[in-house]
Amino acid sequence: MRATTIHAPGDIRVEQVPDPVLKKATDAIVKVTAGCICGSDLWPYRGENPIRPGATIGHECIGVVEEVGSEVSLFRRGDFVIVPFCHCDNTCAHCRAGAQSACVNLGMTSSGQAEYARVTQADGSLVGTGEAPPPELLTSVLALTDVMPTGWHAAVSAGVRPGDTVAVVGDGAVGLCGVLAASVLGAERIIAMSRHESRQQVARAFGATHVVAARGAEGQAEVLELTDGVGVDAALECVGTDDAMSTAIAVTRPGGGVGFVGVPHGVQLPVRTLFEKNIGVRGGMAPVRRYLPELLDLVTAGRIEPGLVFDLTLPLEQSPEGYRAMDERRAIKVMLQP
Amino acid sequence: MRATTIHAPGDIRVEQVPDPVLKKATDAIVKVTAGCICGSDLWPYRGENPIRPGATIGHECIGVVEEVGSEVSLFRRGDFVIVPFCHCDNTCAHCRAGAQSACVNLGMTSSGQAEYARVTQADGSLVGTGEAPPPELLTSVLALTDVMPTGWHAAVSAGVRPGDTVAVVGDGAVGLCGVLAASVLGAERIIAMSRHESRQQVARAFGATHVVAARGAEGQAEVLELTDGVGVDAALECVGTDDAMSTAIAVTRPGGGVGFVGVPHGVQLPVRTLFEKNIGVRGGMAPVRRYLPELLDLVTAGRIEPGLVFDLTLPLEQSPEGYRAMDERRAIKVMLQP
Repeated sequence: MRATTIHAPGDIRVEQVPDPVLKKATDAIVKVTAGCICGSDLWPYRGENPIRPGATIGHECIGVVEEVGSEVSLFRRGDFVIVPFCHCDNTCAHCRAGAQSACVNLGMTSSGQAEYARVTQADGSLVGTGEAPPPELLTSVLALTDVMPTGWHAAVSAGVRPGDTVAVVGDGAVGLCGVLAASVLGAERIIAMSRHESRQQVARAFGATHVVAARGAEGQAEVLELTDGVGVDAALECVGTDDAMSTAIAVTRPGGGVGFVGVPHGVQLPVRTLFEKNIGVRGGMAPVRRYLPELLDLVTAGRIEPGLVFDLTLPLEQSPEGYRAMDERRAIKVMLQP
Repeated sequence: MRATTIHAPGDIRVEQVPDPVLKKATDAIVKVTAGCICGSDLWPYRGENPIRPGATIGHECIGVVEEVGSEVSLFRRGDFVIVPFCHCDNTCAHCRAGAQSACVNLGMTSSGQAEYARVTQADGSLVGTGEAPPPELLTSVLALTDVMPTGWHAAVSAGVRPGDTVAVVGDGAVGLCGVLAASVLGAERIIAMSRHESRQQVARAFGATHVVAARGAEGQAEVLELTDGVGVDAALECVGTDDAMSTAIAVTRPGGGVGFVGVPHGVQLPVRTLFEKNIGVRGGMAPVRRYLPELLDLVTAGRIEPGLVFDLTLPLEQSPEGYRAMDERRAIKVMLQP
């Protein structure tokens, strides 16, 4: 099949690789209708994560079931499915407790930017949509594989409640989905920290009531000023850097919560500050499967349109250009069509 | 007045010092009926916190209002009161949000082991008991000034819910009160980590269903074994050391919560582990005033008896012996009577 591969920092190719095959009786193979590039794919692209040269890349996709293992009973060839980036059996103790991203049978989509993807624990992982989604819902359904549940997880982890004032640090697709999540969860005031006009527009469409363009100490001061010096009830850290975490903690009121979903790169948690301000910190990889049914209902009912984060669609063959566009922040999020 | 003072590590004295006086119209002076020694008093006693030689020490006391400032309207001379160790106006934005320990007018009791104590923000801080508590409730009421609300805060911060399995790291008076709090909040299984038989007994009286005496890796393994390898829903870190925090995090299941109330000394929060396990961490100085009414009701109704943590009562003049007894772990908690 044709698949996106990574060979070195900055070296993304579309190549012929072996088709994925069923390895376990609980696997399924999905023919990819649409995949996309994640902000976290930029870590290896920028040389900040180790790379296995020639490995396929991409963990977000939707598509049609092509083949299932003998123990898969809930899905069959032809079903249209959403593939959570993290696979789970949805039955183990961790899954039952809502921590599907720590499933004892955890798996990951490894060829989402390709023609086919293997899904482990298919019965537990996949969520069917019935018919293929209509074209106008396609990007929003694709967003449910990772970016929207991850923004949702940031808001849930931060403890966003109705009436809250919320700050969102990071204006990537996850941060924007965090704005949308906070809005759906009832936040009254949502401060999006964003310097880019196109992203500010999406943030406002998603429910941001305020935008702060400044960063660092200046940005923190602006958020505090907007809250009469009190700080926000909840902050969503959607980047993964120490600067972003510092900002999130600095703008949170005593007793508030920080939800973090950016994979931490060099983050130091200041335990004395957290203690002095009684600020809770919680986050991690989103338990996508837990949130999927509720989020799919919201998409289907037209209540949320997370697909707005996609501002560039390319054929699979142009994956390398998709990476460049996201790396240079010319695009918020790129959809790839095999 | 006679007061306990600290001059250097290990050098506790009872001396004549000036009586505290009203400094602000919102102050009150309380004649101390009973005070006590806190685990956190041992930090300076052991030379791990800076010391101002000759300073009074002690932040827990109950007693009778002696004098009030002109702006104190809710209390008057003769009222029996509980003095939260952290004083608050109970009206600022942080107090209204339940973060009274970050009040914009925060104060601290500074001569709780003495004949008199000054209380700032008296209207916001103090809680009256009506009559003086009967002798059999005295220690339990005294425990409400700090140690019981702090254990309660650990359980609330960890997110303890009915049916949970909870581990408590630390068998000091706060840890034991954490056991009691978890029990009242509905935890089904409570694992007290304790090596000392007298403390294990109190833990069991407070609701511990299991005791793990081992520490470090061995103790962690025992807790995991008790939970079929899953880990606990919530862990209470009631010490303040890196070892205790590491244990709390290691025994918590993915998606669980760690509540920490030991003042952090050398604690490093492992952000990648927290991310990978989606473990929430929250804690700090307890907002005592927030919890006091509910906890006082529980004490008055005979539903909790946190006073069981006191196993040594001394006259004020024997403060130095009280410190020695707690430092050498001969006593769990020492009450001092002026």
